Amino acid sequence: MEREVNLGVIGLGRIGKLHVQNIMSQVTGVKLMGISDVLEEALQDTARKFSVSLAKQDYRYLLDKKQIDAVVICTSTDTHAKIISEAAQAGKHIFCEKPIAHDMSEIDKALKAVNESRVKFQIGFNRRFDPSFKKAKEMIKTGKIGEPHIVRVTSRDPAPPPMEYIKVSGGIFLDMMIHDFDMIRYLLDEDVKELIAVGSCLVNPEMSKYNDIDTAIVTFQYRNGAWGTIDNSRQAVYGYDQRIEIFGSEGCIKVGNKKPTEVFLSGTEDTRSDKPVYFFLERYNESYIEEIKHFIQCIKENKEPSVTGHDGKMAVVMGYAAKESLNKRKFVEIANDYTN
Amino acid sequence: MEREVNLGVIGLGRIGKLHVQNIMSQVTGVKLMGISDVLEEALQDTARKFSVSLAKQDYRYLLDKKQIDAVVICTSTDTHAKIISEAAQAGKHIFCEKPIAHDMSEIDKALKAVNESRVKFQIGFNRRFDPSFKKAKEMIKTGKIGEPHIVRVTSRDPAPPPMEYIKVSGGIFLDMMIHDFDMIRYLLDEDVKELIAVGSCLVNPEMSKYNDIDTAIVTFQYRNGAWGTIDNSRQAVYGYDQRIEIFGSEGCIKVGNKKPTEVFLSGTEDTRSDKPVYFFLERYNESYIEEIKHFIQCIKENKEPSVTGHDGKMAVVMGYAAKESLNKRKFVEIANDYTN
Amino acid sequence: MEREVNLGVIGLGRIGKLHVQNIMSQVTGVKLMGISDVLEEALQDTARKFSVSLAKQDYRYLLDKKQIDAVVICTSTDTHAKIISEAAQAGKHIFCEKPIAHDMSEIDKALKAVNESRVKFQIGFNRRFDPSFKKAKEMIKTGKIGEPHIVRVTSRDPAPPPMEYIKVSGGIFLDMMIHDFDMIRYLLDEDVKELIAVGSCLVNPEMSKYNDIDTAIVTFQYRNGAWGTIDNSRQAVYGYDQRIEIFGSEGCIKVGNKKPTEVFLSGTEDTRSDKPVYFFLERYNESYIEEIKHFIQCIKENKEPSVTGHDGKMAVVMGYAAKESLNKRKFVEIANDYTN
Amino acid sequence: MEREVNLGVIGLGRIGKLHVQNIMSQVTGVKLMGISDVLEEALQDTARKFSVSLAKQDYRYLLDKKQIDAVVICTSTDTHAKIISEAAQAGKHIFCEKPIAHDMSEIDKALKAVNESRVKFQIGFNRRFDPSFKKAKEMIKTGKIGEPHIVRVTSRDPAPPPMEYIKVSGGIFLDMMIHDFDMIRYLLDEDVKELIAVGSCLVNPEMSKYNDIDTAIVTFQYRNGAWGTIDNSRQAVYGYDQRIEIFGSEGCIKVGNKKPTEVFLSGTEDTRSDKPVYFFLERYNESYIEEIKHFIQCIKENKEPSVTGHDGKMAVVMGYAAKESLNKRKFVEIANDYTN
Repeated sequence: MEREVNLGVIGLGRIGKLHVQNIMSQVTGVKLMGISDVLEEALQDTARKFSVSLAKQDYRYLLDKKQIDAVVICTSTDTHAKIISEAAQAGKHIFCEKPIAHDMSEIDKALKAVNESRVKFQIGFNRRFDPSFKKAKEMIKTGKIGEPHIVRVTSRDPAPPPMEYIKVSGGIFLDMMIHDFDMIRYLLDEDVKELIAVGSCLVNPEMSKYNDIDTAIVTFQYRNGAWGTIDNSRQAVYGYDQRIEIFGSEGCIKVGNKKPTEVFLSGTEDTRSDKPVYFFLERYNESYIEEIKHFIQCIKENKEPSVTGHDGKMAVVMGYAAKESLNKRKFVEIANDYTN
Repeated sequence: MEREVNLGVIGLGRIGKLHVQNIMSQVTGVKLMGISDVLEEALQDTARKFSVSLAKQDYRYLLDKKQIDAVVICTSTDTHAKIISEAAQAGKHIFCEKPIAHDMSEIDKALKAVNESRVKFQIGFNRRFDPSFKKAKEMIKTGKIGEPHIVRVTSRDPAPPPMEYIKVSGGIFLDMMIHDFDMIRYLLDEDVKELIAVGSCLVNPEMSKYNDIDTAIVTFQYRNGAWGTIDNSRQAVYGYDQRIEIFGSEGCIKVGNKKPTEVFLSGTEDTRSDKPVYFFLERYNESYIEEIKHFIQCIKENKEPSVTGHDGKMAVVMGYAAKESLNKRKFVEIANDYTN
Repeated sequence: MEREVNLGVIGLGRIGKLHVQNIMSQVTGVKLMGISDVLEEALQDTARKFSVSLAKQDYRYLLDKKQIDAVVICTSTDTHAKIISEAAQAGKHIFCEKPIAHDMSEIDKALKAVNESRVKFQIGFNRRFDPSFKKAKEMIKTGKIGEPHIVRVTSRDPAPPPMEYIKVSGGIFLDMMIHDFDMIRYLLDEDVKELIAVGSCLVNPEMSKYNDIDTAIVTFQYRNGAWGTIDNSRQAVYGYDQRIEIFGSEGCIKVGNKKPTEVFLSGTEDTRSDKPVYFFLERYNESYIEEIKHFIQCIKENKEPSVTGHDGKMAVVMGYAAKESLNKRKFVEIANDYTN
Repeated sequence: MEREVNLGVIGLGRIGKLHVQNIMSQVTGVKLMGISDVLEEALQDTARKFSVSLAKQDYRYLLDKKQIDAVVICTSTDTHAKIISEAAQAGKHIFCEKPIAHDMSEIDKALKAVNESRVKFQIGFNRRFDPSFKKAKEMIKTGKIGEPHIVRVTSRDPAPPPMEYIKVSGGIFLDMMIHDFDMIRYLLDEDVKELIAVGSCLVNPEMSKYNDIDTAIVTFQYRNGAWGTIDNSRQAVYGYDQRIEIFGSEGCIKVGNKKPTEVFLSGTEDTRSDKPVYFFLERYNESYIEEIKHFIQCIKENKEPSVTGHDGKMAVVMGYAAKESLNKRKFVEIANDYTN
């Protein structure tokens, strides 16, 4: 595509607004043509700030608009699958926030619609576009650490979400560790063969009311034989803790946390430096820009996005496997014969 | 001011465009009302991208426009003083890139116009708004290191500018170390009493043709008795090297460089991590946003900007003092009885 | 005890010689009175170098020597239990290298002899005396991170031992992870409730001939509910990798590796620093001194050493549990009703 | 020399005792044959602890003893020159603590005696043997940073010595910065052409009573054109601060401080790590061992020690130059036509 890509953004919550801002200021070759949100106020605020003329509560106006090439779906999870299907049928390229859905059959239906329409489809696993994780992945791919042997992912939120959210979140494995499941597949370009999960409520016993836990460790083996662990906590008081380590036959890659400043204070007691940046908006701000750049580039160059619908599905599959493993206290295999 | 601040941006070179982009996406409570550049193409590009209706080659259109509250001056240095005076007379608040001018009498004339008009005036010493340096300054101010004894500033560019630029740059002290002169005044809220400069051409002997050097060290004493050094090089092959250290009676603050990623690779030979980010756009990206936010906030709250015209002048005074010291091989005092 | 403690060292291999050297130069209040080794040459070398008059191939000379207060046992593992029993019966205080034995009944027999004789007994889990790990433990104990939630131990050797050694080593869990089992008990002053082990041969498939593996991960839960993982590899090409992390409700402690120098080289490609020190003699040199100091202090002040025979036994119990878990692919409980 | 080197140690103060301990435990191929100290108690303590039979208050016993090959002189500075001359005349190889003397003619006399006797002579600039500084020097030598442009040395003591000591110390340049003067010559294998010194009493005004200062910065140029600064403070409350940086055409080497542990605590406020090790005994413990090893090796292999009498003299010459520069407030040249 020679000309600018005309975009519509559906859903103007926190992430939707972030995408709008990034599209306006950080991504070239793209025009924000329309926006949609069920809340009139969010809609008008954004329309005014960025001079967007097409602003509608009903997203179908955007799907009907011929000049719009692609949509970015940032609505609530339960609406993703439906909008994906409709957008695909309308021939729009689709960028959709994760997860596609919690229900496997809905996921399959949405992916089927995408496949039939042959539009570009990218799932918003933004962490793949984090400069640090991306560099780590490229180092692995180019053999800098030889054969990977052990992968370790640490992923801890600064504070747990409200109980209202926990109730509908799908549980720690589908809501939080889902990112890490995608990360481990991404890092090695390799699927997981089996996993075993442990965990309990150490942060807040109330979570157990909703059959959920707040502290979890999953140990897994890749199909190629490498091993790994993921640990999650809903509360790291020192801020968002997002680290990975890949240990291999020729070396080891460690990715540390991002800090707001590079200030060190040496005093009579100790040396003090910044704790990590607070949460995902700060840690992953670059990745939100890069994933949209990638989506636009794929449309322009007619290439498949590197984060596929299948990737979106597999992370959910692994989330359910972890849930099952926790309940049964044994290893659970990840099905081999999936189809996209 | 209750309503949005209406801004005009004059000069759309690299820094001008950066300010436009930041104003559009990162600063709230502001509206970009007009832009100006002598080059028609740069003008139209920016006008289109950000839907700016008032786009003129002659900046005086912006000064005449009643609705415009303030201007951001990003033209070439030799035009700063003139535009400042005109903008002040037109009653516009002024944000001007550094330096005000190389000629001291021009600086005085421009500052006089500003004082008489009583508009807000902020000089673009953006490094003061760098999160790391700002945190360091606040730590000093709140007594975290007691009485400062030694300040050390390292400031090295990744690569020297072309000789064409060197020729008209004013020399290393006015073009490059000027930032560091401002930084040392900022850090301690204290003026320099005297300084002594050394240096030579170690990067490129050609610089001497233009009576310039590429490697310089200035040793100085503050009026309060504390000591310090600044070292500059026009070429650090590993990237932009911007560090400061403030050593005091109760501790020491060190500010290190910013890195693009937090990846560490341990191999058979060593552990490798990123070199610093390439240059000022990467290192100081946040500071360019923060300085404009500060300017807008000062207009809205009717407060004086923290980087004054006097600050702009003093850095130039110190640049000339360093030049004189280098030539005479002796200490040069910084005049005590300056007036704004 | 007012006077100097008279020591005998039994076994002058690598560790025995190290203890002799440390006793001579780093520990005060102690006198090396006798040494013993089955190899005449090692014996005479050490005797000459440190002017030790009592040097005998048969360690029983030392046990018979009335003036000797305590012995340090550094012979091969299969002789530990026997010498412990004899030394206890001779009324000598005992410092013994780990492990006590591989056979549980031998361990029990040796510990029984110790208990009956009421001599001081310290097992050589030197890592407990590593300044970094010790500081971490004290921080946990004094509540610096609140309630511990997740403990992670990484322990990787720079290179695998020869196959000759693997054959008789007892396997990775009893030979290598045994240190980490002790470490996790030490850190939280808490026993493990159950564990699950995974692993395989990723470094060298030959290990499987001896029914051993070279890469292992154990996930465990403490009796107090906290979770943890240990990962081991027989080969980290970048050197000895010995890190721990303890994550809790109020913070997180990380212990990194020791490096030989603090040199950083910034170049056009990256910044390079030292890989970790090579192996245990370099990493744990201070801990070998501190454990002997502790032993001597306990004798002088008539206190129980902080690393007990029970600790020595529990690490072996856990090693066997991990072995069983790996074979059965399920959780294995650590017996609750042990007696010392 | 095939056999062990027989050593005598003269002076058993803090440094003398440290050398004795290192000789006994860390250096091979050497035998401590005799010791001497004017204080009977120190003498007997050391004799007993290390079973040294020849222990005399008068060092001349050691010089007369034919079997003694070499002496280590650790007495007070004012006795160095005299003992050096006598030892040289007695044909003993000499390791002498720095400085040789404060009086230039005494230095020349001592070095003349050494030259005439052709014994090995090594001055105790131990920092040259610090693993970090040594690695930095080797990196420079092998071209890792291309041509050096700027050298920066930071050297700050944790606490000032008592006023009693200040009185007789020779002043900050001869007592403290003398180490740094040697360091900058060592790093580049290059002499200094001229220097300019600034400084004052910021730590304790009382020092001025003795015509001394506690905070000093020296800026200098090497004969090859490279520039540098040294900053000294008598008091860094966070511990011994010993850092160097060498910036060159192809990169930059930084040497940081040594820390007692590698523990990091992330909390709600910040991340805390260890301050540097307390003082020179902790920071330079390895260098004290390495310098003696080097001395012994030079005797055995009949090579000249790498730290010569000339090096010892030049550091004193620079100390006097700095003193003069401070007083006259101008550049002082370092004489070119020195002879050894």
